[in-house]
Amino acid sequence: MITALAGGVGAARLLRGMVEVVDPSTITAIVNVGDDTRLHGLHIAPDLDTVLYTLAGLADPETGWGIAGESWTVMEELERLGGETWFRLGDRDLATHCYRTQRLSEGATLSEVTAELARARGVRVRLLPVSDDPVRTHLGLAGGGEVPFQEYFVRLRHDVAVSTVRFAGADEARPAPGVLEAVDDAEVVVVCPSNPVVSIGPVVAVPGLLEHLGRRRDDVVAVSPIVAGAAIKGPAARLMAESGFEPSVVGVARWYAPWASTLVVDRADEALAPAVEAEGVRCVVTDAIMSDVERAAGLAGAVLGAVGRPPS
Amino acid sequence: MITALAGGVGAARLLRGMVEVVDPSTITAIVNVGDDTRLHGLHIAPDLDTVLYTLAGLADPETGWGIAGESWTVMEELERLGGETWFRLGDRDLATHCYRTQRLSEGATLSEVTAELARARGVRVRLLPVSDDPVRTHLGLAGGGEVPFQEYFVRLRHDVAVSTVRFAGADEARPAPGVLEAVDDAEVVVVCPSNPVVSIGPVVAVPGLLEHLGRRRDDVVAVSPIVAGAAIKGPAARLMAESGFEPSVVGVARWYAPWASTLVVDRADEALAPAVEAEGVRCVVTDAIMSDVERAAGLAGAVLGAVGRPPS
Repeated sequence: MITALAGGVGAARLLRGMVEVVDPSTITAIVNVGDDTRLHGLHIAPDLDTVLYTLAGLADPETGWGIAGESWTVMEELERLGGETWFRLGDRDLATHCYRTQRLSEGATLSEVTAELARARGVRVRLLPVSDDPVRTHLGLAGGGEVPFQEYFVRLRHDVAVSTVRFAGADEARPAPGVLEAVDDAEVVVVCPSNPVVSIGPVVAVPGLLEHLGRRRDDVVAVSPIVAGAAIKGPAARLMAESGFEPSVVGVARWYAPWASTLVVDRADEALAPAVEAEGVRCVVTDAIMSDVERAAGLAGAVLGAVGRPPS
Repeated sequence: MITALAGGVGAARLLRGMVEVVDPSTITAIVNVGDDTRLHGLHIAPDLDTVLYTLAGLADPETGWGIAGESWTVMEELERLGGETWFRLGDRDLATHCYRTQRLSEGATLSEVTAELARARGVRVRLLPVSDDPVRTHLGLAGGGEVPFQEYFVRLRHDVAVSTVRFAGADEARPAPGVLEAVDDAEVVVVCPSNPVVSIGPVVAVPGLLEHLGRRRDDVVAVSPIVAGAAIKGPAARLMAESGFEPSVVGVARWYAPWASTLVVDRADEALAPAVEAEGVRCVVTDAIMSDVERAAGLAGAVLGAVGRPPS
């Protein structure tokens, strides 16, 4: 059994590679819900959907999010009406949000709805939201004010300085059913190459996670989302720096060191391996850029092998 | 100034005709919200939308509801997911619900949102929901149980016996801003050919409406939705019978007699004119079947003329 901590696009790509090298039904992904938002009355869960669409083979390969070949009829009409269209929702994607929102309104939990969506899409990896309770990432802006994650990420295009990061609701959130067991029982816990601050941050902010991860430290392997001092995608490097961590594989190692024994870094960062190991984290160097499924599968194999459990 | 009490398709057609014979900006339509429902997290207001789409020239001429030439991408995908698809929502129609729900969640009232949607669609008739508070029609089934209106109307195709009709929330609902004034100040109040039980019923169930209408009785003219003992569309005849009223123009006259002085009936019911007048309601006989805009305009002219105010 393999358990992965997952954000959005980077995690989805690694998981897509992983199902090429191990039986998908042996993988559990614990997915960030800090990005979740309510818009137009709909419950939108961007990271869960990105992972789901990618594993279902539906994801847009260009953007990494959304559904390939989407139509935009609803958004175009909403634009005509003068509605909120900064958060682009394709027509088929909207069906996911309609389904989720309706089921939640009927009393289903987010875990249950996620399992139903995965089944409907033929996805065999077990997807667990880290919590069925609301955990919501809010960013304090250096210029003043605080905004929810999607305002920061999409509307402001993460082009503003951040002074604080807060996971509203995290203190009271309970891990979703199966989450702690998945950490406890996994042979390997993989931290996907997701943003440490706003993707993995909200996951480990849920009470119990850090404690259970800490107990499994020897078997926890992280993949650096930072390559050569820059994020592969998104604001990870900037947010790390703003949070007081060096935006490099060394900063990632320091961030994860309390509960991860091993960090996988790209060859571009080979020279930093000794600095990573100086943080008390074993450094494994490999090709970490997942430009296609084959490379993602190669990276997944290297990651699983990094803590002594090569794919059988 | 003309004020109309409106349900869905029948009302929309009469109003569409009315704007051909009087300046649209002199018309206020007070619209039923008893059919409103929440589905997929979205606030759906079927009668407001039917009137809006019809006046905007967008309505599907076949069904009378929805938008002509709609695409159904979201519904098709929702069907694939095993979601609730019995209530058909076209893609462009969904944009209306997204807009409305988002604005309501921001604190706008239903009146405000309706005015915004009308403006965006270029509709000059003033559309007022009868109340900004929730009024919801529930039907007690003769076979047991109670269902909200759309379950009865769409899911059960109104093919079940009804024992009770209840307008949940009506007792506490306040008329929306402008509603009572529109009744007070109108030269003519037109009761559109809508279902007396479940379209006009929830409108006049809002406190204040009956009292204000009663004061204007001489200027209130209703159009019978029943022609030759049958509803032009929908379950009006059946629901009237189940409510203890004869499903005929005479039953309609008796229903509205306390606050309407005049009933316009189709030529098919000419023989019943004396029976209508025996209810204390003046009977005006004309062509009341609105098979096209010209006939709807003709009917609107006859209706406005019926209480001595022919269109200028």
